[in-house]
Amino acid sequence: MIILAIDTSNQPLSVAVLQDNQLLATTTFNYHQKDHSTMLLPLIADLLQRVDLQPDQLDRIVVAQGPGSYTGLRIGVTAAKTLAFVLKKELVGISSLAVLAAPLQPENQNTVIVPLFDARRQCVFAGIYQQKKQQLINLLPDQHLTLAELTAKLQKFPKVILVGHDAQQFNQQLQAELTNKITLATGVFDYPQAYQLGLLGRTAAPVEIHSFVPRYLRVTQAEKYWLAHHQEKLNEPLVEKF
Amino acid sequence: MIILAIDTSNQPLSVAVLQDNQLLATTTFNYHQKDHSTMLLPLIADLLQRVDLQPDQLDRIVVAQGPGSYTGLRIGVTAAKTLAFVLKKELVGISSLAVLAAPLQPENQNTVIVPLFDARRQCVFAGIYQQKKQQLINLLPDQHLTLAELTAKLQKFPKVILVGHDAQQFNQQLQAELTNKITLATGVFDYPQAYQLGLLGRTAAPVEIHSFVPRYLRVTQAEKYWLAHHQEKLNEPLVEKF
Repeated sequence: MIILAIDTSNQPLSVAVLQDNQLLATTTFNYHQKDHSTMLLPLIADLLQRVDLQPDQLDRIVVAQGPGSYTGLRIGVTAAKTLAFVLKKELVGISSLAVLAAPLQPENQNTVIVPLFDARRQCVFAGIYQQKKQQLINLLPDQHLTLAELTAKLQKFPKVILVGHDAQQFNQQLQAELTNKITLATGVFDYPQAYQLGLLGRTAAPVEIHSFVPRYLRVTQAEKYWLAHHQEKLNEPLVEKF
Repeated sequence: MIILAIDTSNQPLSVAVLQDNQLLATTTFNYHQKDHSTMLLPLIADLLQRVDLQPDQLDRIVVAQGPGSYTGLRIGVTAAKTLAFVLKKELVGISSLAVLAAPLQPENQNTVIVPLFDARRQCVFAGIYQQKKQQLINLLPDQHLTLAELTAKLQKFPKVILVGHDAQQFNQQLQAELTNKITLATGVFDYPQAYQLGLLGRTAAPVEIHSFVPRYLRVTQAEKYWLAHHQEKLNEPLVEKF
C-alpha cells in the first residue's frame, strides 16, 4: 500500500510517502516566512516525482485532522480531501496530538504521554496517551482545556512525558504543580513527523470523503459571536446551513 | 548558527537545515532506485532555496562520519568537505551510530542503547550508548564485531534497546541469547534523522577539513588483499602514500 501523509495542523508542515510501513520519502519544514498553502502541493508533487511515483499510484491519503490552527487544518484537510476525491483513493484522518505522542515508548507502561499545543490565554489542546503492548491508547480524548484543568487531570498518574514544541513554555508551570512527575521530550520529538502519521493511518479505517471535516475542538470567534447573537445550536454546522 | 547536516552513511539519505537547535527544514529519502551521488547536491540546493538561504549563509556543515557503506560515506564526507572548504565554513563529523541512538531517552538511566548496522557475514557495526543527564554517553566505541562478540558485551547490562532498520533482522537472535533484556525501537527510529545529526554536531568541535576522513571501522577488501601480499602496516593510509 502506497500512502501519502500530510500534517499542516500547526507551524511545521510535514509530508511523507510510505510503502506499507517503510518510509520512501519525507520532508518537514518549520519555516515561518512562507505559508502552508503555497508550499504544500508543490512539495507533494516534488516528493512523488523524486521517488518515481505518479499520484494515481497512491492507495491512501492520511491527514492530521486536528486539533491545531484553523487555517493550517483547513489547508491540510482540503488538500487531502481533494486528492482523495479526484484520485478516488482512501482517506484517513488521525489526531494531530496522537502523531506527537506515538513515537514515545516509555519503559514504564504506567507512564502517560501528554502531547500539547498552545491554544493561547493559558489554554492548551492536549490529550493523555499511553503505550500498551506496542499500541497507542488514548486515555483522555483530545480537548481544549485550561492549564489548571490539565494539571488536575494529571495528578493521578505517576509519571508524565510532555511532548511538542509548545510543551517547553508550559514545562516550568506544570513542573511546579506536579513535582517530580514531568519529563519533557525534546529534539526530534518537538515536531510532528508525517512518517509517523502515515504509520498510524495505515491500519485505521477510511472515512467518507465528503463529510470529513477538521477537528478544531473549539468554537471559532466568528461562531461564538454568531451564537451569542442568534441563539443557534452548536451542533448545526453553519456553513452547511447556509 | 545556521547548520547543514548530511547523512548518507547507509541506504537512507537525510539532509537538514537548522537554526541553532530549531529545525528549519529536513528531508529523508529511503529509496533504492536512485543513488546518493545524484540526489544529494540537488536536494541540498532545493532545501536551502525553500527556506530562503544562500549557501554562504551556512555557518557549519555536520556530516555523519561512519560507520556505514563505503560508497555512502565517501559521498557524504566528500560533499561536506567540499562545501566546507569552498564556502570556508566549519566542518564537524559525528558517528552515524550516535545519530540513531540519540533520540532514545530511556526512563531507566541504566538502560543501554545499541544502534547497529548490518555488516554482512553475521557481523555488525555497533556501539553501546547511554543517556545520562540529557547527554549521550558512549560506553563502547563504535566498532565492527561479530554478533557473538556483541552478545557477550551486552550480558552485563540490565536492559538493552536495539535501534536501526537493520536491528530487526538480529532481534530474534539477540533475544534468544539475552532473554528479557532486549527491546526493539521501531518506526521513526528506524532511519537516521539529519535534524538529530545537526543537534549533535551543533556543540561538537570543528575538525581540520583536509585531513578529515570517513570512519569505515574495517579494512576494505582491496586493502585486505594488498596487505596480505605486501606486508604493509594498517596505519599507513594507502591513498596518501601513493
